[in-house]
Amino acid sequence: MAQVQRMSRLMVKTLRDDPADAETLNHKLLVRAGYVRRTAAGIWSWLPLGKKVLENVARVVREEMDEMGGQEVLLPALLPKEPYEATGRWEEYGPELFRLKDRKGAEYLLGPTHEEIFTQLVKDQCSSYKDLPVILYQIQAKYRDEARPRAGILRGREFLMKDSYSFDTTDEGLAESYALHREAYIKIFERLGLDHRIVSAVSGAMGGSASEEFLAPAPAGEDTFVDCPACDYAANTEAVTFAATAVETAEHPAVEELDTPDTPTIETLAAHLGVEASATLKNLLVKVDGEIVAVGVPGDREVDLGKLGEHLAPAVVELVTAEDFEGRDDLVRGYVGPQGLEKVRYIADPRIASGTAWITGANKPGKHAKNVVAGRDFEVDDYLDVVVVEAGDPCPKCGTGLRLDRAIEIGHIFQLGRKYADAFQLDVLGNQGKPVRVTMGSYGIGVSRAVAALAEQTADDKGLCWPKEIAPADVHVVAAGKALQTELALEVSQKLADAGVRVLVDDRAGVSPGVKFTDAELIGVPQILVAGRRSADGIVELKDRKTGEREELTVEEAIARLTA
Amino acid sequence: MAQVQRMSRLMVKTLRDDPADAETLNHKLLVRAGYVRRTAAGIWSWLPLGKKVLENVARVVREEMDEMGGQEVLLPALLPKEPYEATGRWEEYGPELFRLKDRKGAEYLLGPTHEEIFTQLVKDQCSSYKDLPVILYQIQAKYRDEARPRAGILRGREFLMKDSYSFDTTDEGLAESYALHREAYIKIFERLGLDHRIVSAVSGAMGGSASEEFLAPAPAGEDTFVDCPACDYAANTEAVTFAATAVETAEHPAVEELDTPDTPTIETLAAHLGVEASATLKNLLVKVDGEIVAVGVPGDREVDLGKLGEHLAPAVVELVTAEDFEGRDDLVRGYVGPQGLEKVRYIADPRIASGTAWITGANKPGKHAKNVVAGRDFEVDDYLDVVVVEAGDPCPKCGTGLRLDRAIEIGHIFQLGRKYADAFQLDVLGNQGKPVRVTMGSYGIGVSRAVAALAEQTADDKGLCWPKEIAPADVHVVAAGKALQTELALEVSQKLADAGVRVLVDDRAGVSPGVKFTDAELIGVPQILVAGRRSADGIVELKDRKTGEREELTVEEAIARLTA
Repeated sequence: MAQVQRMSRLMVKTLRDDPADAETLNHKLLVRAGYVRRTAAGIWSWLPLGKKVLENVARVVREEMDEMGGQEVLLPALLPKEPYEATGRWEEYGPELFRLKDRKGAEYLLGPTHEEIFTQLVKDQCSSYKDLPVILYQIQAKYRDEARPRAGILRGREFLMKDSYSFDTTDEGLAESYALHREAYIKIFERLGLDHRIVSAVSGAMGGSASEEFLAPAPAGEDTFVDCPACDYAANTEAVTFAATAVETAEHPAVEELDTPDTPTIETLAAHLGVEASATLKNLLVKVDGEIVAVGVPGDREVDLGKLGEHLAPAVVELVTAEDFEGRDDLVRGYVGPQGLEKVRYIADPRIASGTAWITGANKPGKHAKNVVAGRDFEVDDYLDVVVVEAGDPCPKCGTGLRLDRAIEIGHIFQLGRKYADAFQLDVLGNQGKPVRVTMGSYGIGVSRAVAALAEQTADDKGLCWPKEIAPADVHVVAAGKALQTELALEVSQKLADAGVRVLVDDRAGVSPGVKFTDAELIGVPQILVAGRRSADGIVELKDRKTGEREELTVEEAIARLTA
Repeated sequence: MAQVQRMSRLMVKTLRDDPADAETLNHKLLVRAGYVRRTAAGIWSWLPLGKKVLENVARVVREEMDEMGGQEVLLPALLPKEPYEATGRWEEYGPELFRLKDRKGAEYLLGPTHEEIFTQLVKDQCSSYKDLPVILYQIQAKYRDEARPRAGILRGREFLMKDSYSFDTTDEGLAESYALHREAYIKIFERLGLDHRIVSAVSGAMGGSASEEFLAPAPAGEDTFVDCPACDYAANTEAVTFAATAVETAEHPAVEELDTPDTPTIETLAAHLGVEASATLKNLLVKVDGEIVAVGVPGDREVDLGKLGEHLAPAVVELVTAEDFEGRDDLVRGYVGPQGLEKVRYIADPRIASGTAWITGANKPGKHAKNVVAGRDFEVDDYLDVVVVEAGDPCPKCGTGLRLDRAIEIGHIFQLGRKYADAFQLDVLGNQGKPVRVTMGSYGIGVSRAVAALAEQTADDKGLCWPKEIAPADVHVVAAGKALQTELALEVSQKLADAGVRVLVDDRAGVSPGVKFTDAELIGVPQILVAGRRSADGIVELKDRKTGEREELTVEEAIARLTA
């Protein structure tokens, strides 16, 4: 006899009020509906309903990973230090890595991702090009000691992740493994019912070349991304690359010096001159590996230090301090202009195109200069897109004004290249009989995070509202009344379960129909079947959780409908 | 189209030789057949075939836990220190517990078992007797920093475990939850095809009253247990309780002192007197919470300090040192006899029954005494069974000589009682309107260890030999030849897969039929189907991995047989 989940026996305690520390919708609802409970900061327990939802997401991920030829493995979460030292990540991860010692004093870490261990495993297992390509994946608890764990299960310190790794002998092979993942991810997120966008991404500390993020738009998201309302362009804000503008050919008057006392900032300067900030050129001084570098951007824009750092990596970028100006008469704080900076490398935003004219510092205290023309009065050493992207910025692909939105990162795919293979000398014998260095990809899906993203995207003001494949049950049967209703509810539930329908039945005694209805809406199973007033006539009510549409049916009709 | 696992693509590298550090059969075979690889001491990676076997075991466990009404949850593995401090286990676990700090210096542990966290969870979730009983379980990585991780996956430092916890308001309820687990465990181990014995166990550091172990007899096992060839008695050696023997009524001569120079040990004494060691009484001195206590056992038996410690817990038992004899003229090292120990508590094995006569120390250097009769010449303060059990010892139930065997502990069920509920004041409102303290059980199955136990019990000299439900595939198809054989093998494999059979096919090019046969035997899928010499006629060979029976069949017959 198939099993029915009876709420009278199930450990599910719903709460009327939002938890005090909850800021995001998914956090509030998943706690209130009894799916998860906090065990420590950023560390969560999955209760019976939550475990089912989590398992459903994992199942979809597993099925699609298998379908594309991925091989499931399970590596440990407790990992030795040495491989992570070999790649430098033991240090690079900083305080985000959980580190510990065993009884003998040997050092270990709790795996945040497993590139090192998979590389070593493939080195042990594969010796010939015939053994490749191979795609390995696992679904496993991962650990990151977040400084500010927040938003419930969205950013936890222990979380469930699918991580996979591809191993190929050629760049084309890597591109193919990457494409396989991209397709599988699209299928996975479609099956999960997650609205998502694929955006270009910077690869961050992972190293490597091509990289895309899968983002689920949601107000609770910690990622900002841009997308174009006209074409298919979408990108992580840090990855937006502004196309170089056309050279302006108009003739400009000669440089003219302006008296601008006490205007060391763009705001004071624009106010003093009565011009738009966008007419001015802002020159930020930074240190790159200790050397002073100037970065020019339009006066109404901010420098994105993250983007700058990405462009210049592995060089380290720092802000300058007062001491850096000592003995540098060429650098006049607040009045720097590129036309007087012969000794300083000048990096500029593509908007400072050759031929454009600007108001900028005159390299004298209290003085600015106008008609300072790029390419005529100063040279740009490197054009790099380093400004913080803003809504309305032109799409790099079609020029339409971009939109700016918040989203949850639910997946990430990277072409790592040979970084890890180099660290561990991962070679296989090539088809020419010579060793070939392997090239790798690394791919992640936040399984527990996908649950949070789904909750965010599908919930309404009544509660959670799961897509069918992910819901903890197919139908939520409510016994709204006394013994008669309970008897009918249990009878119908058993018939449905025997027909393969996953049933949650609210058979709790001493709980009012009103509370049961509210709980059913909160829990969010897609179909709600109520055994109520007309139970004696064998009439039940079937309600669609999402649309709220309701219909009275005979028991037989309801069963036929739900098993169709 | 259903998926076929193709060895040409699967990451499975078999080894001809046993790994150098492998001592046990399961370790050798699981590594050689490509199921697992060592990542660090006691920390293992599960490769594709191994992951399937592990998952199959987990599935059986999950199904039976669900069937008996268990609710699956998933708690974190990274746990805060405080609840474990509240029960004292933070200290008690000693160096076996992995401890770590987060970036803020807060202390955490990697869960070895989760009694504390489940108790807190139920305290949060359940408030009334109506919410109980509840049985919660999880299948999750567990951590123990073993001093000497060994035997491959049999005793790892990270391992997969099913742990469950029952919560009841009455002792009868606990007994019922315990019985439910006992039955479910029997079903699980039967489905897994694990030969097992249920033995009485001491509860160790877990506390509590009733406790039984599920043991899988295997030479690699680290547990020793006894069982009776005549009745159903079986027990962990530390839990064997020898029944008090009948009082001997014969008249004994008076005590007689013997001159026994240089005989401080039983061996030297027995040799000097020409008697059996069993005729002598050995008196071991120990300190119990600092006080000297004498323990009397027959001269041919050893004291089991573990059993003694269990009997006297929470008192701490230590061996005496030379300093303890200072100023104690009543204690003559090597010549102690109970007849002169008025100031010392005397604990004796039940074999030193009242009325039995012994040769023992005369409490004078170089002197022993004979005809020293229990109850006449000395009094026993406490009778405790503290001897190391030996093969041939009488069964406590029927008196038949016991057998002694080695086994792997695959499951353990405990009636914890109210120890943890007391620590966290876990009460629910009783049906009389008053708070009732909850009583708990704790139950474990070593999921990864069960894989090792299965390998140990079912392997033969050719390799692994899995039961059907646990095997990584139902049939291993071998393409033994060139293109023709490979084509037939793949065609049959696909047909089988489409019919729901789990297929592993060896379609590797450039690998000889001999190597493929050897690998198939090593990998241990129950049925082996060979497309060989007679492939052109549509004739294949079906071989039973266990019995070695082989039969030539047409392809259609083979498919019919395997899909039956």
